[in-house]
Amino acid sequence: MKVAIVMGSDSDYKIVEKTEKILKEFGVSVEVRVISAHRTPHRALEFATEAEKRGFEVIIGAAGKAAHLPGVLAALTILPVIGLPIKSSTMDGLDSLLSIVQMPKGIPVATVAIDGAENAALLAVQILSIKYEGLKEKMRKYRLEMEKEVVEKDKQFIMLNE
Amino acid sequence: MKVAIVMGSDSDYKIVEKTEKILKEFGVSVEVRVISAHRTPHRALEFATEAEKRGFEVIIGAAGKAAHLPGVLAALTILPVIGLPIKSSTMDGLDSLLSIVQMPKGIPVATVAIDGAENAALLAVQILSIKYEGLKEKMRKYRLEMEKEVVEKDKQFIMLNE
Amino acid sequence: MKVAIVMGSDSDYKIVEKTEKILKEFGVSVEVRVISAHRTPHRALEFATEAEKRGFEVIIGAAGKAAHLPGVLAALTILPVIGLPIKSSTMDGLDSLLSIVQMPKGIPVATVAIDGAENAALLAVQILSIKYEGLKEKMRKYRLEMEKEVVEKDKQFIMLNE
Amino acid sequence: MKVAIVMGSDSDYKIVEKTEKILKEFGVSVEVRVISAHRTPHRALEFATEAEKRGFEVIIGAAGKAAHLPGVLAALTILPVIGLPIKSSTMDGLDSLLSIVQMPKGIPVATVAIDGAENAALLAVQILSIKYEGLKEKMRKYRLEMEKEVVEKDKQFIMLNE
Amino acid sequence: MKVAIVMGSDSDYKIVEKTEKILKEFGVSVEVRVISAHRTPHRALEFATEAEKRGFEVIIGAAGKAAHLPGVLAALTILPVIGLPIKSSTMDGLDSLLSIVQMPKGIPVATVAIDGAENAALLAVQILSIKYEGLKEKMRKYRLEMEKEVVEKDKQFIMLNE
Amino acid sequence: MKVAIVMGSDSDYKIVEKTEKILKEFGVSVEVRVISAHRTPHRALEFATEAEKRGFEVIIGAAGKAAHLPGVLAALTILPVIGLPIKSSTMDGLDSLLSIVQMPKGIPVATVAIDGAENAALLAVQILSIKYEGLKEKMRKYRLEMEKEVVEKDKQFIMLNE
Amino acid sequence: MKVAIVMGSDSDYKIVEKTEKILKEFGVSVEVRVISAHRTPHRALEFATEAEKRGFEVIIGAAGKAAHLPGVLAALTILPVIGLPIKSSTMDGLDSLLSIVQMPKGIPVATVAIDGAENAALLAVQILSIKYEGLKEKMRKYRLEMEKEVVEKDKQFIMLNE
Amino acid sequence: MKVAIVMGSDSDYKIVEKTEKILKEFGVSVEVRVISAHRTPHRALEFATEAEKRGFEVIIGAAGKAAHLPGVLAALTILPVIGLPIKSSTMDGLDSLLSIVQMPKGIPVATVAIDGAENAALLAVQILSIKYEGLKEKMRKYRLEMEKEVVEKDKQFIMLNE
Repeated sequence: MKVAIVMGSDSDYKIVEKTEKILKEFGVSVEVRVISAHRTPHRALEFATEAEKRGFEVIIGAAGKAAHLPGVLAALTILPVIGLPIKSSTMDGLDSLLSIVQMPKGIPVATVAIDGAENAALLAVQILSIKYEGLKEKMRKYRLEMEKEVVEKDKQFIMLNE
Repeated sequence: MKVAIVMGSDSDYKIVEKTEKILKEFGVSVEVRVISAHRTPHRALEFATEAEKRGFEVIIGAAGKAAHLPGVLAALTILPVIGLPIKSSTMDGLDSLLSIVQMPKGIPVATVAIDGAENAALLAVQILSIKYEGLKEKMRKYRLEMEKEVVEKDKQFIMLNE
Repeated sequence: MKVAIVMGSDSDYKIVEKTEKILKEFGVSVEVRVISAHRTPHRALEFATEAEKRGFEVIIGAAGKAAHLPGVLAALTILPVIGLPIKSSTMDGLDSLLSIVQMPKGIPVATVAIDGAENAALLAVQILSIKYEGLKEKMRKYRLEMEKEVVEKDKQFIMLNE
Repeated sequence: MKVAIVMGSDSDYKIVEKTEKILKEFGVSVEVRVISAHRTPHRALEFATEAEKRGFEVIIGAAGKAAHLPGVLAALTILPVIGLPIKSSTMDGLDSLLSIVQMPKGIPVATVAIDGAENAALLAVQILSIKYEGLKEKMRKYRLEMEKEVVEKDKQFIMLNE
Repeated sequence: MKVAIVMGSDSDYKIVEKTEKILKEFGVSVEVRVISAHRTPHRALEFATEAEKRGFEVIIGAAGKAAHLPGVLAALTILPVIGLPIKSSTMDGLDSLLSIVQMPKGIPVATVAIDGAENAALLAVQILSIKYEGLKEKMRKYRLEMEKEVVEKDKQFIMLNE
Repeated sequence: MKVAIVMGSDSDYKIVEKTEKILKEFGVSVEVRVISAHRTPHRALEFATEAEKRGFEVIIGAAGKAAHLPGVLAALTILPVIGLPIKSSTMDGLDSLLSIVQMPKGIPVATVAIDGAENAALLAVQILSIKYEGLKEKMRKYRLEMEKEVVEKDKQFIMLNE
Repeated sequence: MKVAIVMGSDSDYKIVEKTEKILKEFGVSVEVRVISAHRTPHRALEFATEAEKRGFEVIIGAAGKAAHLPGVLAALTILPVIGLPIKSSTMDGLDSLLSIVQMPKGIPVATVAIDGAENAALLAVQILSIKYEGLKEKMRKYRLEMEKEVVEKDKQFIMLNE
Repeated sequence: MKVAIVMGSDSDYKIVEKTEKILKEFGVSVEVRVISAHRTPHRALEFATEAEKRGFEVIIGAAGKAAHLPGVLAALTILPVIGLPIKSSTMDGLDSLLSIVQMPKGIPVATVAIDGAENAALLAVQILSIKYEGLKEKMRKYRLEMEKEVVEKDKQFIMLNE
């Protein structure tokens, strides 16, 4: 199980590292890359074209502003591409979101929330778990943990209510 | 290979039928349903809870306005859920998009473009093709067809240029 | 007189505590809960379904981003549900607002301003006061206090003007 | 049980009549009025001030553009005021929505979706049902009907799936 | 020459004091007031109704969020009312702007930029100068000063260019 | 009493004619002009510079898209300039509104609603009435007429209610 | 003098033909192409890479939705690339605009207005005229014609005013 | 090779200095000016009118809020004008962007990203390089440097992956 996380700029890593961390917790092997659709277009082409052969099964593309990276990768591979819009210094992430999600007919990008680093990872795991049964169990556990955490906090408030 | 397309209202079918059509062209078996997160919440719960057992591998949720359906389904299954925001009579689809894509940490929805019916189907196929090798070949063909169509149109303009 | 304040995350409490405080000042008994529509969906279902039986007369749902909580609760109870959109780290609260207010036909959520914690409480009191005459008197007093405060400040400026 | 529906212009009636119709179906007596916060401010003041004495228990204010009407009424009565934003010829209803929902601390308006005429009525009924037990039964029935309708449509699609 | 500056909350004064300052520099006498359209509606009514009699010739209304104040004042006087939208903690001032500028047919509010405190004053002076010739001279001087300042800065850059 | 209405394109006249009509009803003499800030910049400069000398007392500038016209005129005259944002084929008038209202410190434009042709005229009249007492009476009458119309429609609904 | 107009879809031609027409009027030779950044990525790469060698001096890229085309071309050539955002069926062109204009540091796209087909052509001519003196004369003439047209319309209104 | 950078206010220089720096690195001679379309309109007119004669070949106009400067300059010269929208204290730069990019038919402004200071410079260089072959080589080098930087960072992550 191998997932690539490609970010348009190394400054996105402060968000993206949360994606990496969760994938590794699920035992998914991860390759984190800095490839810009605009500043290194040939590298983007090469990476996307060879991703399948290199054994990747899902690609996560993280980018801000006119965030073309996920769409550019998606155009060059048939692997599912997850788009992670990064909030930049203006427009509160709306530009990143629209540039990623509003893909024209033919080439989808599976978009998650602005700065939704964790969800990019979890979506990748859910996609992989179609094939890798073992991930399903892990995901169920993860959900239970998450549920427990919320319930725990709820209980604290229930006690306070009394 | 079985995909569920769940829409919040039967009026969404004029968009959703394009999703259904493409999935069938890829030989994916499809179940189209009308389940409202708000008007039939128990049915939504039941459907999502049993989706995995019933053999679905991907769920597509289509909804407009405060489009909670994909998120509500995603909360109740670990199958990947694709969100298809439907443009409604006000706000030009921005409400649908934000209600679907801005999911909080823990439960992702793989969102495609507003009214992006075809891309919802194609994303589902790409996800399934991780497991079903046969789909990969079909998808490569589909991309080639698509490419050919654009090239054909390009050629017409090239001739006109002369 | 019993009101439930349900928030999607305990981090919302820094806003929500103002709701709680005002309700208590009006002598309304309050139960504050942390229930996530997405991370604890069954708990949300259970809470909403039993809210009426447990004696609640109004529910306040506070949530951010793709804020489904108030709508999900509203779908499962006929008690009036007040939606309190919480501003999150992106989109300046517009996503929370639209996800809460743009409810489809059939299941309304009574939405107040983004981060409008006090108004969520005051709206609950106004709704309750239809039934509980005593609250009317208290609300009239509250309004008078509020008016007095503004008048006081006005007078300070009037003096400065001279 | 008496509800006032106040609209800022008679041109809003094409939306507002759906509010009136539902309220009457629930056996709530309705007074429909045309009162402009801007063109008939004294009339707005008079109406709001006397609404409680005249036996109204909920007020619905419908208005478009810089939609001050619901807020102006709310400032002059302690009855719960429901705001119904009407989509006008520009800005797709966003101006109406923000002008109604973003009320400052102290005076809440219970806002429903843009052009959400039916939900304004249903919210009024839910509020009234706190006091009038009979309405609760009717609302439960209404929800069941609504559910049935969706289920009916779902069944048609289930049949088509086969 | 007398102008009223009415603000919805004393917290707006950090913006509004710039309006006051400029008006005084032009020798216009100013009355600064805190009157809330929502929390002190009768006071708003009284103020607007008597403004003309009291010798005011222009009113400046400053407010944030669902900023009804300028419109409410405008409905009750035929004096020109200038609207000054104040940026609040959410929505970056868009709510204030739309609530003030999108006035329906019949009652205009002369709106200036979000937090445009100086321009509110300058617009008042320009309006007054229709009647008071002396203000025209002062305004021409003011413009010249302003021009000179920009030219001065320009010259510094011109020198740096060399 | 003389008002200039300057529009950026003759296609704006379908909106602007309503401004002209109302001004004439008030007995204000009107000059309607087509002057583009971008396509006829010298003409704009000349017009604005000489407007005061030519006896104009208020200028109304109507324009769409990057609507610079009112601001450009305002920079060249100390007469009060009213900005009328015209909705164009894209962006629903938001571009026109922001381009007109968000004027930087120093040069205000008194902005009315998008396509708010009537209000541009009424604001001009209110401004003129500071100087011309006769207009005040006419404006009061106009307001009364307007009020009567609304009251008339209200009465029709009151009758229907019974 | 040779300009390429590349559009993402042949459906954009109803806008783009106005660009083509103006360029030809200026005697610029034009090649119109249909190349999709997403559906024909290799063709986009090839075209952009060879554009300079093939004698193009300016490229105009027209696209809608997540409009990556101009940015993708710009990344692969050092020719100036003009971006023409096409309004699509949702979001009123805001998605196209932001996807084109918000380019990250390093690769600029010279963006014109949404559906601003004529301006894309005129900008290309202005850029070319840096090198080709003859175009300068033509552009001056074009401006004069444009000015004359506006003046003509202005004169009609001036006559009507009398 | 001479480029003018005109900014509406000297406070824009903290952004604009990055434009100046890059142009100088390319050996382009630069004149930085502070000219306000609104506060120094005659100076703007004079500058734009004489720019061509003075040897400028490209003009960069930087401005915020109702950012008319680039459009005003563009109306008075046939030199290509690049618009650089500056983010101001409200509206996150959207007002600046729309005021600059949405130019009406006839007078284009080549708009770059909000606060996109570097890209304004690079676009100017790319435009100049049509005429000045030497700049092409420099631009190719610049792109290579930029590419190398990204590749360098990529390599660091590749090492970390291992």
